[in-house]
Amino acid sequence: MNAIIGQSGGPTSVINASLAGVFGACRTHGAEKVYGMRHGVQGLLKEDLVDLSAALSAPDALDLLRRTPATFLGSCRYKLPKDDDAVYESLFDILKKYDIGYFFYIGGNDSMDTILKLSDYAAKIGSPIRFIGVPKTIDNDLTETDHTPGFGSAAKYIGTSIKELVRDSTIYDLKSVTIVEIMGRNAGWLTAAAALAKDEDCEGAAMICLPEVPFDPERFVAHVEKLQQSTPSLVIAVSEGIRAADGRYVCELGDNSLLVDAFGHKYLGGTARYLCSLLSAKLGVKTRAVELSTLQRCASHTASLTDITEAEAAGAAAVKAAYNGQTGMMIALKRVSSDPYRCESVPCDIHQIANLEKTVPLAWIDAENYQMREPFFDYARPLILDELPPVYVRGLPRHLRLKD
Amino acid sequence: MNAIIGQSGGPTSVINASLAGVFGACRTHGAEKVYGMRHGVQGLLKEDLVDLSAALSAPDALDLLRRTPATFLGSCRYKLPKDDDAVYESLFDILKKYDIGYFFYIGGNDSMDTILKLSDYAAKIGSPIRFIGVPKTIDNDLTETDHTPGFGSAAKYIGTSIKELVRDSTIYDLKSVTIVEIMGRNAGWLTAAAALAKDEDCEGAAMICLPEVPFDPERFVAHVEKLQQSTPSLVIAVSEGIRAADGRYVCELGDNSLLVDAFGHKYLGGTARYLCSLLSAKLGVKTRAVELSTLQRCASHTASLTDITEAEAAGAAAVKAAYNGQTGMMIALKRVSSDPYRCESVPCDIHQIANLEKTVPLAWIDAENYQMREPFFDYARPLILDELPPVYVRGLPRHLRLKD
Repeated sequence: MNAIIGQSGGPTSVINASLAGVFGACRTHGAEKVYGMRHGVQGLLKEDLVDLSAALSAPDALDLLRRTPATFLGSCRYKLPKDDDAVYESLFDILKKYDIGYFFYIGGNDSMDTILKLSDYAAKIGSPIRFIGVPKTIDNDLTETDHTPGFGSAAKYIGTSIKELVRDSTIYDLKSVTIVEIMGRNAGWLTAAAALAKDEDCEGAAMICLPEVPFDPERFVAHVEKLQQSTPSLVIAVSEGIRAADGRYVCELGDNSLLVDAFGHKYLGGTARYLCSLLSAKLGVKTRAVELSTLQRCASHTASLTDITEAEAAGAAAVKAAYNGQTGMMIALKRVSSDPYRCESVPCDIHQIANLEKTVPLAWIDAENYQMREPFFDYARPLILDELPPVYVRGLPRHLRLKD
Repeated sequence: MNAIIGQSGGPTSVINASLAGVFGACRTHGAEKVYGMRHGVQGLLKEDLVDLSAALSAPDALDLLRRTPATFLGSCRYKLPKDDDAVYESLFDILKKYDIGYFFYIGGNDSMDTILKLSDYAAKIGSPIRFIGVPKTIDNDLTETDHTPGFGSAAKYIGTSIKELVRDSTIYDLKSVTIVEIMGRNAGWLTAAAALAKDEDCEGAAMICLPEVPFDPERFVAHVEKLQQSTPSLVIAVSEGIRAADGRYVCELGDNSLLVDAFGHKYLGGTARYLCSLLSAKLGVKTRAVELSTLQRCASHTASLTDITEAEAAGAAAVKAAYNGQTGMMIALKRVSSDPYRCESVPCDIHQIANLEKTVPLAWIDAENYQMREPFFDYARPLILDELPPVYVRGLPRHLRLKD
């Protein structure tokens, strides 16, 4: 029997560490062949497969794979249809053709939906193929798992960047506000990670705005004004997804019908840029908008070793579960000890996970002072610990690339 | 006799390594006291000084200082007036009050102008104080020096980020263009560093647009269209300062009178965002604008050790020159060997440097194919070599902060 692995959804720094974990464990468990789907289920439907034993045959392949951001196998944003048996029949025909007994899918919420639908369909038709999901998302918004692989590395990048931006932004003897926009439409986990920057060597983010708390522009301006009485230069972390009490995204506030680009298209201004405009209009201070952009999800050069290790272990645990006869499961991380920190990989029924979203507990947010409370630090600090330094070639981190 | 050190202009990752170099060499050469100006000459005029021997007394202080981005002493953007003797009299009175014999200023073009004016004024009044500049700018636009400290680390960050963005941007089986906007108003050195990403493990930047070459929007769109026939996902590096043949900045092209923010202010759209609008209007492709923002000048966690070492050596060479009786000099880096790469620090007459700008030689640019030619690689590759890993505390790089 053979195994197949796919990757799906947005990149993280450690999704390839999970791939290394699944691949290594498949070999240990005696899978005859290990296939990779190119571009996830979308590629599988086109039989666009790769023999991973060949693709990962170089002596340093796994070592580089762990250090390579984004998805080695390519990705897709494809949601299986609800009631189109033809698609499922076609997929299972292909799986049969390649003698697949074990199906692993590394991804976020949509990918877990794929595992749910395929394992349900397998149960319906009595297929023995086992389907296991391996979690991955920088957003950290999956339920039933203490956290998701990918979050710790993004949090480490965000904490590092905020520290560097604080040093950069406070050098002049002037009033200024730097607003750093961080990913997260509904869950503020990544923006909360900006809080980790505060330490004896760093003032930290002066304010942190999460989507979990309705955003009040007037109170925001007043708080900036108050802080600047004693601290002229502020760095503020905001989630791209913060919304006013009426539910509108902050970047949609104001008369944005005016924000039109050179080609007449309506232009979504960006949360940080909107807030910079607001502060410069209300307080007349110098502002700068910094978007951490896609770098926050792919900066593998500063990944967390804790994250890499857990991502790889989750991949291996998925294989173990499948060979133990389990299916329709996602591997969750369970924090079994806080001091010393230790997480275990445990299989968890996919029906409890798919299509649900976990946000930051309100009790962890000090909304009045725009800061995070102690339980968040206890939760997040272990996840960013330790490093796996890049392999440098000609001064730059070396990656592993799948050749066409 | 005492020495004084200031830092001025925009941050780099290694300006504090130069501070460590000046400070260490001042102690070796027997300076009685070593003062730091807070916020450069602006702070000096207010006698806002710090005793560096006290500020750097902790056993790990110099080790952390080398790894701390931005300016430990604070910075200013202050240009000395041309003909206002009162300012010079006041400055020299303060220098006399603190028994200063040696004056070191670490900075870019404007800071070298300060060294020029102060040394000229000293000559005029017969003051024995020696004034030496230490170069610093990520822009690499100073003349008479092979390169400037700060450039190598920014180039390493840019090369690393482009590699990561290429992996991130090519995962979907879709046509897309990611445009990465890089600092540099007139000189394209930093944007050219995007070329370093190309290697056997990376497709590299598909196109590179420097301010040295007039930008033709039509030819740009046509080239993207041509490349996408064989490569659907492209990452393109553009300098913020690219200009059309008529001299207008690209971000000012089109009918930007329409680009107005929610408060009615005219909104400078950004070069990358303009080009994304252009491509999506003309080719209908998915685009994404990424601005490397101030992170490119302060990402000390991935600084080049070659850069740090040279920055510190330049600082030490400034002190040696001053104690040898020289004044009105900037320390230049002179490439004395290419293979193996080796640079020496040599004093150079400040009148040959201040207020001049060095751009990328046109012969190094393959404008037709939007790429860099081999001499650029030979020039830039040694500058990004090797690393000085951060000291990690609680998972984040530790910095040194001057306490108020």
